[in-house]
Amino acid sequence: MEWMDSLKKVVGSDHVRTSSAHLLAYSYDATAGFQAMPDAVVSPGSTEEIRQIMEICREHQVPLVPRGSGTNLAAGTAPTSGGVVLLFNRMNRILELDEDNLCVRVQPGVLTLDLCDYVEGRGLFYPPDPSSMKISTIGGNVSENSGGLRGLKYGVTKDYVLGLTAVLPNGQVIKTGGKLAKDVAGYDLKALLVGAEGTLGVITEILLKLIPKPEHQRTGIAYFQSLEAAAATVSEIISKRIIPATLEFLDRGTMDAVERFMDLGLPEEAEAMLLIEQDGEAGQVERDLSAMIDISVRNGAVITAVAETEEEAGQLKAGRRAALSALARKRPTTILEDATVPRSEIANMVRKIREIAERNQVEIHTFGHAGDGNLHPTCLTDIRDNEEMVRVERAFAEIFEAAIDLGGTITGEHGVGEMKSPYLQWKIGDEGIELMKTIKQAIDPLNICNPGKMFAKANKPRVVVAHG
Amino acid sequence: MEWMDSLKKVVGSDHVRTSSAHLLAYSYDATAGFQAMPDAVVSPGSTEEIRQIMEICREHQVPLVPRGSGTNLAAGTAPTSGGVVLLFNRMNRILELDEDNLCVRVQPGVLTLDLCDYVEGRGLFYPPDPSSMKISTIGGNVSENSGGLRGLKYGVTKDYVLGLTAVLPNGQVIKTGGKLAKDVAGYDLKALLVGAEGTLGVITEILLKLIPKPEHQRTGIAYFQSLEAAAATVSEIISKRIIPATLEFLDRGTMDAVERFMDLGLPEEAEAMLLIEQDGEAGQVERDLSAMIDISVRNGAVITAVAETEEEAGQLKAGRRAALSALARKRPTTILEDATVPRSEIANMVRKIREIAERNQVEIHTFGHAGDGNLHPTCLTDIRDNEEMVRVERAFAEIFEAAIDLGGTITGEHGVGEMKSPYLQWKIGDEGIELMKTIKQAIDPLNICNPGKMFAKANKPRVVVAHG
Repeated sequence: MEWMDSLKKVVGSDHVRTSSAHLLAYSYDATAGFQAMPDAVVSPGSTEEIRQIMEICREHQVPLVPRGSGTNLAAGTAPTSGGVVLLFNRMNRILELDEDNLCVRVQPGVLTLDLCDYVEGRGLFYPPDPSSMKISTIGGNVSENSGGLRGLKYGVTKDYVLGLTAVLPNGQVIKTGGKLAKDVAGYDLKALLVGAEGTLGVITEILLKLIPKPEHQRTGIAYFQSLEAAAATVSEIISKRIIPATLEFLDRGTMDAVERFMDLGLPEEAEAMLLIEQDGEAGQVERDLSAMIDISVRNGAVITAVAETEEEAGQLKAGRRAALSALARKRPTTILEDATVPRSEIANMVRKIREIAERNQVEIHTFGHAGDGNLHPTCLTDIRDNEEMVRVERAFAEIFEAAIDLGGTITGEHGVGEMKSPYLQWKIGDEGIELMKTIKQAIDPLNICNPGKMFAKANKPRVVVAHG
Repeated sequence: MEWMDSLKKVVGSDHVRTSSAHLLAYSYDATAGFQAMPDAVVSPGSTEEIRQIMEICREHQVPLVPRGSGTNLAAGTAPTSGGVVLLFNRMNRILELDEDNLCVRVQPGVLTLDLCDYVEGRGLFYPPDPSSMKISTIGGNVSENSGGLRGLKYGVTKDYVLGLTAVLPNGQVIKTGGKLAKDVAGYDLKALLVGAEGTLGVITEILLKLIPKPEHQRTGIAYFQSLEAAAATVSEIISKRIIPATLEFLDRGTMDAVERFMDLGLPEEAEAMLLIEQDGEAGQVERDLSAMIDISVRNGAVITAVAETEEEAGQLKAGRRAALSALARKRPTTILEDATVPRSEIANMVRKIREIAERNQVEIHTFGHAGDGNLHPTCLTDIRDNEEMVRVERAFAEIFEAAIDLGGTITGEHGVGEMKSPYLQWKIGDEGIELMKTIKQAIDPLNICNPGKMFAKANKPRVVVAHG
């Protein structure tokens, strides 16, 4: 293919992979059930190389699919119709730390945890902490507007993006933002690119805001005999004007899976668990943590504990950390969703998830970020069982519908990708879909950038079908 | 005119004003030197009425200029080519306070200070505090993405917008966002509308995030014999990982004006003043404030003071509060700009502003938000003097150029409007202008919404001309 030769001239033959092993490896991401073969896997070394790749893709109408570490859970980084998968493994440098202006400039391929460790070593803090942070990239986090455990107190990725360099579908390079706390010079183009899932261009450099690292951190835990008691605790914590650093929720089914996996001695009588953390100034942290434990007890917590050492904190956190791995061991396929509701609706939502799972005879357990209403109903299933998958998809459709009924959304932090495209219209309406398509069509008229994602399947019949 | 009759049918004759007194009153905003007569001034009562007004404006290709209180300082809310000025004086209700989900739903016409007072009475806090907050509206703040004194610590308006209802130029109503800390269902449409200065549609309802009200606040002040000493103090405060609630800067000229106006007894030998505030937990506030005063002294502050009572705090703040009023008394015309630079470049920028003012023989004094690099070089002039205005405009062009050279922007919190449209390209480049025009053209192909603003004059010859 002519365009393949052009690509090799731009990045060098070594950085254009077309072996069937490579194509297969990048035909899917972490999302079960979505797969399509690319034509090439390309590792550029610079913004300029990406600009030239964009020109080639434009000229030959070849899809361009940017991909960080492929940890995406909405099939946002799997190809849908061939083309080029663009990797950032060669663009993984931290370019500049500016301690005067509290910001860091990085290439998209930097791993999130590497960035966090780097800045924390200098007394600074990059708060967004998606659960995938050990292996996910900053570029992927920005493209997906990733959340994490600290979302309630510290916000999500978009709240830390000060500037972007991006290659647009028309082949132009734009530089947006700067080392500025305030900048209102025109439309907020970087806000449009953050969370656009690679559909409006390729992000090639990122300027991130940092904050001072909190001096202290404390961890506590509380177990409840009912969902309602845990939810009431969450509500009362907020109504007492406490904003914890993390407030994580596990339901009974998730605790059972963790217990089987790790034998932590989680109490058998508990229906719900809250992992509670606060950070900041020492006195404030102590006061907040003890107030939150008091509130838990007042709302009927059967067991509470506060870690006195880092090791103990690690033990308390072990259950939450192991939740997904523990659940994933039970059945061949794990589907982790992120239906999200206003915080006040958490108990309602968890109950609805249970009812929906029972009605559809599928196994779904729920854990997630209680402080910000971001729940992860996780289905344990077998993708090879077509009949079961029909029920699984019906259950998730009902879960999304329930979330929207409660004022929530179909995705709090995973993105829409290909997987949730059929449901996007439920959240934003025909008018929202039309506006998004108008923007996409204007910026990427040839539909080069990550086609088949986000609104691509909007308003398609909502017939639930099993994946092949 | 047929469309005028249609407007009257929609909102009622009483709410369509066309007297010459009304048209004159809404022919300009708070920005000196920009004026054009509208054809009508319309006060709708609902989203539905605004939708119908949009349809009428589309059908008859009539410009639609949304306007809050007109405190805009970039000629963003003055008409440029007739049409309808849309007021929100009838849409000024607080619709819902949701204490569980820490948010408030309001109509655009609510005054910012009224909102702040309302939520603070309930132990909550809406941090964005533009200096105009006593009279500006929330709708105006959102459309301009207004900043304020607390920008460094708490962010700006965009950081508090959870959801918007808007009427698009195509006559459709969209509802974006929700009571959600996390939501990544598609492009961030609300982020595109925030700060769009009314060029992409009319915002008709706003959902704002609130945070707990800080328990304590302390105020201090420090006077320095040199600009460099004040700037070094700002740098050291940040490098010590302290993020103050406010860190305001006044130069010698501004202090002189304040002293003539108010006789506060500001020290004559000082070249710069820093107003320092911290809020939060009591112990932390004390520690931070005393650390900041220590840093000031170490960097050569000649006088420092800490308020022990609210009354004393009011006295310390009086100088900063009076800065603009005091400056405005000196000459017939005051032009307040907001060139913004990375925090580390403040001393450089203030020095450059002085040199530029001297070279162009115009009087410019500078005050502003030192913590976030958002400076307000303020020119005292006479708009009737064409020869002087040529020099004023040349000076501001040079100031914008200097800000961009230092990694800054042409506007930190005022917006582009008509006034700074010729300079926007300097900040975002031809590629940025083209992308913004592409978005505008796609969403508002008839150019109904606030025409003549933002990029409308981009790439026009940069010849400086006096206003009539």
